[in-house]
Amino acid sequence: MNPHPFDTAIALTHEPPDRWRGRTSDDYWNMVSPYGGVTAGAMMQAMLDHPERRGTPLAFTLNFLAPINAGDYAIDTELVRANRNSQHWAIRLSQAGRVLAQAIAICALRRETWSLVEAAPPEVPPPEQCPPAPPRKATGFLQRYEFRIVRGTPFAVNEDSLSHVWVSDVPPRPLDFASLTALCDSFLPRIFLRRPDFVPIGTVSINIYFHAGEAALTRHGAAPVLTVAQAQAFSDGHFDHHGHVWSADGTLLATTQQLVWYKE
Amino acid sequence: MNPHPFDTAIALTHEPPDRWRGRTSDDYWNMVSPYGGVTAGAMMQAMLDHPERRGTPLAFTLNFLAPINAGDYAIDTELVRANRNSQHWAIRLSQAGRVLAQAIAICALRRETWSLVEAAPPEVPPPEQCPPAPPRKATGFLQRYEFRIVRGTPFAVNEDSLSHVWVSDVPPRPLDFASLTALCDSFLPRIFLRRPDFVPIGTVSINIYFHAGEAALTRHGAAPVLTVAQAQAFSDGHFDHHGHVWSADGTLLATTQQLVWYKE
Repeated sequence: MNPHPFDTAIALTHEPPDRWRGRTSDDYWNMVSPYGGVTAGAMMQAMLDHPERRGTPLAFTLNFLAPINAGDYAIDTELVRANRNSQHWAIRLSQAGRVLAQAIAICALRRETWSLVEAAPPEVPPPEQCPPAPPRKATGFLQRYEFRIVRGTPFAVNEDSLSHVWVSDVPPRPLDFASLTALCDSFLPRIFLRRPDFVPIGTVSINIYFHAGEAALTRHGAAPVLTVAQAQAFSDGHFDHHGHVWSADGTLLATTQQLVWYKE
Repeated sequence: MNPHPFDTAIALTHEPPDRWRGRTSDDYWNMVSPYGGVTAGAMMQAMLDHPERRGTPLAFTLNFLAPINAGDYAIDTELVRANRNSQHWAIRLSQAGRVLAQAIAICALRRETWSLVEAAPPEVPPPEQCPPAPPRKATGFLQRYEFRIVRGTPFAVNEDSLSHVWVSDVPPRPLDFASLTALCDSFLPRIFLRRPDFVPIGTVSINIYFHAGEAALTRHGAAPVLTVAQAQAFSDGHFDHHGHVWSADGTLLATTQQLVWYKE
């Protein structure tokens, strides 16, 4: 059986102690650079693969510095500090010595505590009742996700930018922290829900908080995740969104924010 | 006239090219460490003061690695990449060579573009009609902020964790990016809005997107800001919140997220 294209795209070779070598994938190519989610997934995977890594991802923030060219790249992982129950990492992706993405991340041991999920998933039909959206593009990363849009019409003037979309890997792939990280960049850019015409955009920062551990991801399996997002402001060349990723059984897997550059 | 205690707390001495020396302030002390907001403000200020800094803050993410002791600290700023219209920074605070906080940040030149603020401030009475909350503590950073609580009762079982609070520096101080950064950590920990009893907590990560430029901050002056926040999940020893900071005239100054450790 061939490996899943996502696994090929984030495959890394370890150069101990702290360097990882990878290569961009045509399967996850975007306009001028790899899809940001696959870059995030590869940087997450480098941390996850590190022999010193303990616990599971808790917070992950990635800033995109400049376009990544097709070809080889290096990822450097630095365990900045290890506490008893948590680890702090800094992760950088570079090509020819130029840093093109930088992340900071926290891993932690999850503990049984009092708990309460205050957010609630929207009431939406199950994914099998929602038709997949026609592909927006014939090549690249949009082929690698299936979007079942429940709310929010792309490239239209919606009353707001709130969207509800079932998203899954194509072909289906069991969810893990790398693919969940990548899925957190799969939200339609909010500007395309408020304006009918295409405008050049690019994600500059993505922030993810992981609210569930390995068990919830394993339980979820390869089913679509329910993604919910809304912008708060479009101003002076940047807009944000705030999003939720829910598992099929209603578990809040992650909350995520993004800041996106737009041209005009 | 004496300098404002916030200015004293974030005062830095530059050791060119990229090191800054500061000292913790009793005025902004918290339980076992400085108030996280003043640490964030000092790290922001180091970047702002850097002679190579261009543009204004756009995104700022800070992870707290370990408690900062009372006394001297160093801040190292690294301009990781400068593009035509944006800069990417990495900032670390250390004591005796041990990194205790790490941040990544983006500065950008703000540009006139199509704009739309989708979020709306809640309808609340003006600050002068809202009584200041009695001080929660007799010393430390809580003395340095005045909270006028419109919604959300601390240390009670509220129906949700949503709060609306007018917050201002004590004494009043004209808003700038360092104080706005600090204000983004002034939200009452959400767990104290869902549980009546104190439980040990500590912020581990704070993320801020700045939606307005210098002009909006200058226009705002020293008036209280309206802070709005709500948790999404409390699970496995960590909870989050998602918040807004509004100026007196209804301008969205910042959106912010936080991840907070809690004991049980």
